Order: sequence, then C-alpha cells, then structure tokens
Amino acid sequence: VTQPIRVAVVGLGSIGRAVYRTLAARQWVQIVAAVDVDPTLIGRDAGELAGADAGGVPVVASFGEAGTGGDVAIVCTGSRLEAVAPLLGEAVAAGWHVLSTCEELAFPWLRHREAAAAIDDAARAAGRCVLGTGVNPGFAMDAAVLHLSAVVDRVTAVEVERVVDVATRREALRSKVGLGISATEFAQRAAAGSIGHVGLAESAALVATAFSWPTVDLDESLEPVFADAEIEVAGRRIGPGAVLGIRQTATIREDGEPRVVLRLTMYGGAADPHDTVTLHGPSPITQRITGIDGDAATITVVVNTIPVMVTLPPGLVTVLDVAAVRARHGLIE
Amino acid sequence: VTQPIRVAVVGLGSIGRAVYRTLAARQWVQIVAAVDVDPTLIGRDAGELAGADAGGVPVVASFGEAGTGGDVAIVCTGSRLEAVAPLLGEAVAAGWHVLSTCEELAFPWLRHREAAAAIDDAARAAGRCVLGTGVNPGFAMDAAVLHLSAVVDRVTAVEVERVVDVATRREALRSKVGLGISATEFAQRAAAGSIGHVGLAESAALVATAFSWPTVDLDESLEPVFADAEIEVAGRRIGPGAVLGIRQTATIREDGEPRVVLRLTMYGGAADPHDTVTLHGPSPITQRITGIDGDAATITVVVNTIPVMVTLPPGLVTVLDVAAVRARHGLIE
Repeated sequence: VTQPIRVAVVGLGSIGRAVYRTLAARQWVQIVAAVDVDPTLIGRDAGELAGADAGGVPVVASFGEAGTGGDVAIVCTGSRLEAVAPLLGEAVAAGWHVLSTCEELAFPWLRHREAAAAIDDAARAAGRCVLGTGVNPGFAMDAAVLHLSAVVDRVTAVEVERVVDVATRREALRSKVGLGISATEFAQRAAAGSIGHVGLAESAALVATAFSWPTVDLDESLEPVFADAEIEVAGRRIGPGAVLGIRQTATIREDGEPRVVLRLTMYGGAADPHDTVTLHGPSPITQRITGIDGDAATITVVVNTIPVMVTLPPGLVTVLDVAAVRARHGLIE
Repeated sequence: VTQPIRVAVVGLGSIGRAVYRTLAARQWVQIVAAVDVDPTLIGRDAGELAGADAGGVPVVASFGEAGTGGDVAIVCTGSRLEAVAPLLGEAVAAGWHVLSTCEELAFPWLRHREAAAAIDDAARAAGRCVLGTGVNPGFAMDAAVLHLSAVVDRVTAVEVERVVDVATRREALRSKVGLGISATEFAQRAAAGSIGHVGLAESAALVATAFSWPTVDLDESLEPVFADAEIEVAGRRIGPGAVLGIRQTATIREDGEPRVVLRLTMYGGAADPHDTVTLHGPSPITQRITGIDGDAATITVVVNTIPVMVTLPPGLVTVLDVAAVRARHGLIE
C-alpha cells in the first residue's frame, strides 16, 4: 500500500481520543476528519483534544462537513445500536467504510434485527462495509475462539472465561461494574439494565453462528461480587458487603445442551486475570492468554482492523468475516 | 453458500487420504477429482483408498484428465517447493485455486524467490490464488502469533515454543526426528538435510514480515535429544544414548537483536506438550495452547481454510493474507 488510509474519528470521548492519539502516530494512516455533535468540541483541534500533537483536524458536527471524504470512519459514540445507527447510515452514504466500538454492532441481528437489516442495506447500496469490533466483543470471547478452532475438526461446545481486575482499568469500567455500591443499588441498576457488560450475548451469538448452532435459546445472568473484608481498589476503600464487581454469564443451548458458555468476571482485586478458551469435542483444546490490557486493547483491535476494512465485502459484516479460518463442520452460513 | 465447493485432492499419500476422508464427510464440499502420478493408484477408487466410503472418484494422473475442473485443489505431494511447483502451475492454469501442505510454500520467497515469483505470476494470470498452510507452518508458530497480536499495539520481539511428544504422533514424524538412531547417524542426516522439521524458517519469516522486520539475518540450529536411560516410545525400546528426537530453533535478528525466536522440540516422551507464544513489547502478552493434535490438525487447518480460498486475492498468498487483523505498528507491506 503506497497511499495512507484516510480515516475519520467519530465521537471524541475517551475511546475516540485514544484512537485519534494512536492513529496520529501511524504512518500508514492519515486522519482527515474528526466528527462530534458536542457543541463544546466543534471547531476545536482534535489533535490537541486527544493529547496528540496539535495541528490536528478541526472537529466538525457531521460527515457532511467532513470535507471530501475518505476510506474508514471509526465510530466511537456508544455501546447501544439505536444511538449509533443513524451515524452509520450517514457514514456509508458519505462513502466511508465504518469500524465501530459499538458493542451491540458486533452482532446486531441478535437484538436489533430490523436495524441490522437497514444498516446492511445501506452499506451494500453504498458499496461499503460496516463492522463492530474491539477487545470484547471483537476478540477475547469470540474471535479468539474462532481462531483457535482452525485446528479443530469438530467443536461440540465452547467455554470461555475472562477474568478482569478492574483495579487496573479505567474508572468508567469500575463504575460499569458497580464498584463500591450497595447490594440494593446493584439490584436496582441490574433491573434497569444500567450495570454490567454490553456485548456478552453478542459474543455468544457470534460463536454459536460460527459453528452453525441456533442462537434462540440464549440465557444471561448477572450477579454481584461482594467484598468479604475492607479492601482498597484503585485508591478507594471498599467496605465489607459492598460490591466489588460482577459475574456475568451468557449461555446458548441447543436441545437443552449448553453449546456456548461465556463467563465474564470483572471486579476489583480479581486474582490472576486471564482469558481462557476451551473447545470441547473429540479432540479438546484449551487456550489461555494472560496480559490483555483491556482498555488499550479495544483501541488496538480497532486500529489493527483498519487495513482489513478495505478488503471486506460490502454490507454489515462481523468478526466471522475477518476470522474466516475456523472449524467448519457445520454448513457454511 | 448454496453450492458445495468443488475440490480436487492431489497426492494420495497419508495426508491426501486423510484430507479426502475428512472432506467426504463434509456436506459443503464435493470431491470432484483425485490426482496422483503413482501408476499403482491410477484408476482406483479414491474413496476406497482413503478409507472413506467407496464410490469415490477415480484417481487420474493429471489435472488434464480431471474433467471439467472445479474450485479448490488440495495439493499434498511433498514438503519441498521444487517438487511441488510444476503441479501448482498446472492447477492454476486448469482453473483451480490451490491449497497445499507443502511446508516451503508457506513462505516460498525465503528459499525460492524465483519459483515463488513464477507461481505468483501464473496464479495472477489465471485469476486464482495459491496458499501453503497446515498446522506448522500455517498455525502453531506463525498464524497463532499474528492472531494474538491483534490486541497488541507494538511488538518488539516474538518467542514461540512448541513441544511435541512424537510418541503420540504418526510413524513418519518419529522417523523425521530420528527416533532411535545413533548420534553418528543423526549428524550424517543433519548434514544431508534429511532430518528435522521443514518450515520453521518459513514460519519465522512470516512472523518477521508481519511486523515489518527484515528476514535477512536468519539463523537455524538443529540438535538431537538423547535418551538418558532406556525408554519405550510408541512400542519401541530406545536405549540410553540413542536419539529421541530434535530441538530445532529459528532466529531472526535485526541489528543483532533477536526479533523472532521459534523453538521447536519434538521427541519421544516429551513432557507437557504445548504451544506458547510470547509477544514482547510495552505491554507483553502470553498465550498457551494445549491439545493441538498435530497430525489431525494439519488436515483440519487445510479443510477449514477451503471456504476462505474463494475470497482471497489472486496470486501467491500466505497466512498473512488470512490472518489480517494483527499488530500494525510497522508500515503495511
């Protein structure tokens, strides 16, 4: 490739700024636009906002104002598809491929079948592709499973365990798992759907789809992890009985048998953080990864996926399109 | 995909037969041809030869006799490119994509630059692609590294360790590592290049190329592992001082610093077989896989790669084209 890939960063929150900062140091990328609807950001130097060199591009309010266009728009505006969907349509219509950290976009057919179809239609009509990815969903609990399955003839069930110590992660994640709140508040936020990890069910559906298992029998659970005794987490004292974080599970069954079991444990002080994948079957296989730096890794996966975007087929694609060498005992989807 | 992929199996030795047997049980594949130059095989039922159902296709001597053609030819005739190259040319000229277990084809530019260019030219001219893959090279010591690097911003060095207990593997591998021979015979066979694993240097070159490191400073070593005391391996008594297998290393340095170190240990009775990848850098990461069934896995990787062949660009491609989401701090090649 002789020409740098022309990129837009859309959404200049903490993730968008980190993406911008990383891309500013890459010779193979040229940042040609920065988009955010926040009026306090519009007109500001995106490089400066991101803590990269100043002299970056100015923040504009929409793709229409983003100039002559480019290759790949990185959309980092939220976890929920409903909020992100209009932007995706604008981006492909303006000629951009879209790479997004929106967790529900990793497998939007699961919860937003109609919106997914609309995005797919718009992307195909524009000859562009749209992909949701990151470290989770996008790698740790889905793509890593598919990659490993390349050496396996037949997978009968998949178990994934991800253990994260939120003490070493960003404050937003500690808040997302309820660090320091009471059991009562946890129950309230769980009922309101405002606690826990978005994307676990999507990862489970990706894995099931990869191996031709139906996704209809999907079960999710979310439980708090409590402090036994007072403990310090990221400079905060958490008293006994307060919430340290979560245990979240997504299970997909076929005829009552578990096919995909994803266990995500994220709490302050969690010992031995790791990512383990077990593929059950006639020739079982286990993979254990230690050292994934979760906050950085979301940025990294997105950045590392940019060069692939220009090679994918048009439409709404998933990590199934990217991690294509995988166990293929089922029919091809 | 509604139409099965039409496949030819070329070379009906033990690997080709196992590929045939596996494919015969896959609904998404239709075996349309079997090719082997061995006069004792020509005209025989390939399904019967492979131990699959009889009623398979008859073995023919060349692509010219293989009928109306198809999609993907699986070439399993040898490890050395020189022996395989003419077949590759015939296959693409006859309209087949080629997937091959030929170890040197995994990165043929390393040792056969001119032959690689000729294969690439022929494949591009025919609009077909040619890929060398398997479990090693093709996964354990190269693609697995690239997949893991998707979550890493910057890799400064790569270490891979693969430990194989040949007691649990096919007899051909035990012979390839010199099980039971003397130190003298090992030295003779090492000097003649007729012992050890073909493809380790190719894996090292793939990894280095992925991260934009030059491959010129490449060093290989091969040492015997001896039995300390009498030991039984796969039903054979190996006396003290006899060879149990090999330790083989490939190292690529840049400015004297090791960038890629691949250590392959294969001997009878090796404890704790595993595949470990460590990516060094600002945020080091380690992956450990246990349970790769080496003999089956070569077949499996090839079979699992078939659906991808029809999506790759024309020409001579590598696992770099397949494992495209990876650390991208270097320039895009």
